[in-house]
Amino acid sequence: MLLRSLLPVCMRGVRSAGTPRVMHQLASTTKPALDISGIYPPISTPFDEREQVDYDKLEENLQKYSSIPFRGIVVQGSNGEYAYMSREERLEIVHRVRQKLPKEKILIAGSGCESTQATIEMSRQMGEAGAEAVLVVTPCYYRGRMTSSALVHHYTKVADSSPVPVILYSVPGNTGLDLPVDAVVALAKHPNIIGIKDSGGDITRMGLIIHKTQHLDFQVLSGSASFLLAGYAVGAVGGVCALANVLGAQVCELERLCVSGQWQEARKLQLRLIEPNAAVTRSFGIPGMKQAMEWFGYHGGNCRSPLVPLTEQEQKELRGFFTNNGWL
Amino acid sequence: MLLRSLLPVCMRGVRSAGTPRVMHQLASTTKPALDISGIYPPISTPFDEREQVDYDKLEENLQKYSSIPFRGIVVQGSNGEYAYMSREERLEIVHRVRQKLPKEKILIAGSGCESTQATIEMSRQMGEAGAEAVLVVTPCYYRGRMTSSALVHHYTKVADSSPVPVILYSVPGNTGLDLPVDAVVALAKHPNIIGIKDSGGDITRMGLIIHKTQHLDFQVLSGSASFLLAGYAVGAVGGVCALANVLGAQVCELERLCVSGQWQEARKLQLRLIEPNAAVTRSFGIPGMKQAMEWFGYHGGNCRSPLVPLTEQEQKELRGFFTNNGWL
Amino acid sequence: MLLRSLLPVCMRGVRSAGTPRVMHQLASTTKPALDISGIYPPISTPFDEREQVDYDKLEENLQKYSSIPFRGIVVQGSNGEYAYMSREERLEIVHRVRQKLPKEKILIAGSGCESTQATIEMSRQMGEAGAEAVLVVTPCYYRGRMTSSALVHHYTKVADSSPVPVILYSVPGNTGLDLPVDAVVALAKHPNIIGIKDSGGDITRMGLIIHKTQHLDFQVLSGSASFLLAGYAVGAVGGVCALANVLGAQVCELERLCVSGQWQEARKLQLRLIEPNAAVTRSFGIPGMKQAMEWFGYHGGNCRSPLVPLTEQEQKELRGFFTNNGWL
Amino acid sequence: MLLRSLLPVCMRGVRSAGTPRVMHQLASTTKPALDISGIYPPISTPFDEREQVDYDKLEENLQKYSSIPFRGIVVQGSNGEYAYMSREERLEIVHRVRQKLPKEKILIAGSGCESTQATIEMSRQMGEAGAEAVLVVTPCYYRGRMTSSALVHHYTKVADSSPVPVILYSVPGNTGLDLPVDAVVALAKHPNIIGIKDSGGDITRMGLIIHKTQHLDFQVLSGSASFLLAGYAVGAVGGVCALANVLGAQVCELERLCVSGQWQEARKLQLRLIEPNAAVTRSFGIPGMKQAMEWFGYHGGNCRSPLVPLTEQEQKELRGFFTNNGWL
Repeated sequence: MLLRSLLPVCMRGVRSAGTPRVMHQLASTTKPALDISGIYPPISTPFDEREQVDYDKLEENLQKYSSIPFRGIVVQGSNGEYAYMSREERLEIVHRVRQKLPKEKILIAGSGCESTQATIEMSRQMGEAGAEAVLVVTPCYYRGRMTSSALVHHYTKVADSSPVPVILYSVPGNTGLDLPVDAVVALAKHPNIIGIKDSGGDITRMGLIIHKTQHLDFQVLSGSASFLLAGYAVGAVGGVCALANVLGAQVCELERLCVSGQWQEARKLQLRLIEPNAAVTRSFGIPGMKQAMEWFGYHGGNCRSPLVPLTEQEQKELRGFFTNNGWL
Repeated sequence: MLLRSLLPVCMRGVRSAGTPRVMHQLASTTKPALDISGIYPPISTPFDEREQVDYDKLEENLQKYSSIPFRGIVVQGSNGEYAYMSREERLEIVHRVRQKLPKEKILIAGSGCESTQATIEMSRQMGEAGAEAVLVVTPCYYRGRMTSSALVHHYTKVADSSPVPVILYSVPGNTGLDLPVDAVVALAKHPNIIGIKDSGGDITRMGLIIHKTQHLDFQVLSGSASFLLAGYAVGAVGGVCALANVLGAQVCELERLCVSGQWQEARKLQLRLIEPNAAVTRSFGIPGMKQAMEWFGYHGGNCRSPLVPLTEQEQKELRGFFTNNGWL
Repeated sequence: MLLRSLLPVCMRGVRSAGTPRVMHQLASTTKPALDISGIYPPISTPFDEREQVDYDKLEENLQKYSSIPFRGIVVQGSNGEYAYMSREERLEIVHRVRQKLPKEKILIAGSGCESTQATIEMSRQMGEAGAEAVLVVTPCYYRGRMTSSALVHHYTKVADSSPVPVILYSVPGNTGLDLPVDAVVALAKHPNIIGIKDSGGDITRMGLIIHKTQHLDFQVLSGSASFLLAGYAVGAVGGVCALANVLGAQVCELERLCVSGQWQEARKLQLRLIEPNAAVTRSFGIPGMKQAMEWFGYHGGNCRSPLVPLTEQEQKELRGFFTNNGWL
Repeated sequence: MLLRSLLPVCMRGVRSAGTPRVMHQLASTTKPALDISGIYPPISTPFDEREQVDYDKLEENLQKYSSIPFRGIVVQGSNGEYAYMSREERLEIVHRVRQKLPKEKILIAGSGCESTQATIEMSRQMGEAGAEAVLVVTPCYYRGRMTSSALVHHYTKVADSSPVPVILYSVPGNTGLDLPVDAVVALAKHPNIIGIKDSGGDITRMGLIIHKTQHLDFQVLSGSASFLLAGYAVGAVGGVCALANVLGAQVCELERLCVSGQWQEARKLQLRLIEPNAAVTRSFGIPGMKQAMEWFGYHGGNCRSPLVPLTEQEQKELRGFFTNNGWL
């Protein structure tokens, strides 16, 4: 197993004083103690006119995010356009973000590749670049053969050698593939697999995963702000939400209301976030998210091609979803 | 609406003694006042060996259900095998059930047919047979042309002439069709359309419907026990749950915990209901539900062909989902 | 088995003199001898302003079709809006059509219902009303339980008691369900199941069915004009084509070219039929087909609600698909 | 175009001795003259026990293929496990294969990446490594935004700068995305886009593409042996068939029968190829193809993880599909 879980807790990003959500590590358990509960923006990558990474703008966004009570950030998630980046770029961004990010914030880095070997290598390098955990998307190109057993084998190999804890990542909207519940349950027993980001939005499935892993300290994160309240209601511990790039404080407020049991207030807020969230995910995707970021004082920047910017009509519709819910 | 159940009955609509069937408020609003919040089993139809309706067994089931705090029952929902019944049978069952059902319980009858005209006629007859409301499934055979506007037109015609309030019914697992959100929102304004049973399980969609109809007294019912808690969390007022045919008291207990704000306890119960519920819906369907009913003292009876009974292996698996969650 | 196959050939609608396509019945085979090769329009049902069947217009259409070398016609297929008709209407139409149809033409009647019992009854009545064969769509409402074995059981029961040969009907665009290949192969052995209308358009599947039933005198009909040539190329013997309601002579000409091996000419014609066919099926459905019928001198008439007529814009697009391919 | 193969070589484009790589005709048309009609195996990549490319075995396979009348080969198609390879490996393999491949055979290299820029770069390098054409798969990770216009933009940019002709590649089984017909038609006008490999198997779609590009010298290749005959019937000019890795001579024989108009014989052969083909594609994927290669004297070798080898049971089933059709 990894060396990491042998390190003192203080070096592993576990929440320090002031937070009630430290997962209590007992001597006997081998499960890494990294508590990932909380809200994370899966940060976008601003590109300049030549589609090159604009590190200055990226850092300015980080600066602005620093006042929001995020638990950490996700770098190189789907919203970071990782699929359009070279290995070198992915690592460089993680390296730079870790340097700028306050120490108490967790950096989760996307390290998934199609092949097991590449994912192992990338996870190792992400750990070296400063990530506290890696988020590993399901390989999907040969989805007809990505059976439960193939996926269990893949993730086991990756987790066996990763220097940092592994978070499973199921995002059927992009991959056309749901990580099967039985695979999740099997993998939850691995000492270096600490949770899952589930972006599918099937609350029954999320509840089932939570139910079947409840004795395993396995942490479920909602993969979108649209079902964040429902996720908390069934036992999720946080969320990685594209919308947090735009309305970060509001998403964190929703977290606070859920965690403190103010469900009535939480519901009111949740309902106002669904349309803006759908707009920056399903409807208009990353170009929509980047456009909305500009309206809220962040640098969205260009996308890499083949992603194309919104048309004027699309921008208008997008804006409507924010204004109609009182956010603009 | 979470506080709703704490209000005096007189403020909650029409639950006054003797009849739940008051149709119209006296004040300026034209929206019918039938409060449908609560839990309903969509009762199954026991058939004998010759696949004929066994009315005696049906009535014995009703007798057993009478001790459970259901708000009412749904007759001729999908779980009643309505698709396999003649018009005469559908009406006869509603008629008989209404006679046996305590007056204070609401009877919701499925009246959906493929054509608008047949649905209008069936809704009228269901009202005459004693239904307090009709549940109208989306027509679906020509789904390529079942556009939002075609469906709005269909439901408007039906609601215009129905003698009892109309509840929309979206069940994509059977129909291959989701009633579009924009159609739901448009229809929610109709004075004789009082709610929707949404069985798709997309909690984001349910939240959005609730958000966009919140000033309309439009009532959303979760269409399955698997997401009942999540439904309440986002503002649903009840559920029509196949599992309530089997574990009726438990589903009502889940309702009570949600409505009274005991979310932690609610979650524990919800999680134990997901597998049994999936087993009697998605996995093993009506034959599974009927088999499980037998184990819990109800009459499941035969299904009509082409539904076939469970194999021994399937029975064993089905039983496992109940025993593993502590229900058997 | 049925009595029917014991009847003299002359009573079973086998092609009389003048047609080269009689399937040779040997004494030893039990397979019914009805040769269904050829082209069939699945006729539409003209409705008047009150959505009542307009029998006069229906008969005028039949009169016009009489000059086209159709092998027969299909009554109460999907395009006949059978899903919107009462049992009485379905039978009445078949009865009337059989009276008007020349004796040498085959009448195939849709008799599928959701329940096995209703389908058995309807098949019997369709035979009595004059149908030479029945076309039995897959039951689909409880599609999650419509397993291969359930469907084999259903069709076997229906075929066992049908007085006329049974043609399987797989139309996933409407039912959301493909009749599985293994079920088709199993059913092809039944002496009273003589073929399948496959509307899915998966030419690989059609080839596989033909391959695996090639020793069984099982006849495959393409369910749409869009893949009629490809169907013939892999061994289909005809087609039931919505487009034949509009461009009947052209579809029959395509048949002639394929059957006589003039593949080059066949291809030219086939390619010009794809867009018009897609327009009257997938894109604009029955309302599109009925509109196009009017342009070509037939009575399309109204649809039953919830089908709505085309908008002006849709009509314009529809017309474009005919004009751009040189048909208008 | 069926007569095409009967024409003198000089009238068919550029198949003159020594090089198939003439890029531009001298006459007025700007469309590149590379004639790609014929059969191509999308060759697999044998890996050793450590999952490293086994170049010796790859070259032995090429040696064995040299006696089969392939038009050329495809390197780094989906079946080559390109998704699991580094850029360097992809280029190295193309380089080596080009050296071993007879000059008159066309080498088509997969060069698709998710980002436009990476695809441009890879296409350039593939041309330098010796490819006569590049096969460019649709980017798909952000499929919700891969609109027709985004894809047209992507392919236009790639084709503008590619030193060799571009072949579009639509493979929804892997990508979850069909390149829309309108995008194909728009792109067919680009002087450096010469055709499409369509692996979806929708023969209506293929016919429509052929119909709408018939004045553009745009060449359609069937992407699988299961619908090769149907493809030729509607005007395709060849095929890239996984099965050709295993039964190369038989696939070429099917080509010969189709091109020479022997449709009856072609059909008999086609039908016997469907099950083996389905087995090495949809059912058992690349591990199935590699296993079958071993049975027929080729080196299949290992797959890269997360692809896992077939279980014994799967091997047995796979073998059955070959023996039942008389190939083993």
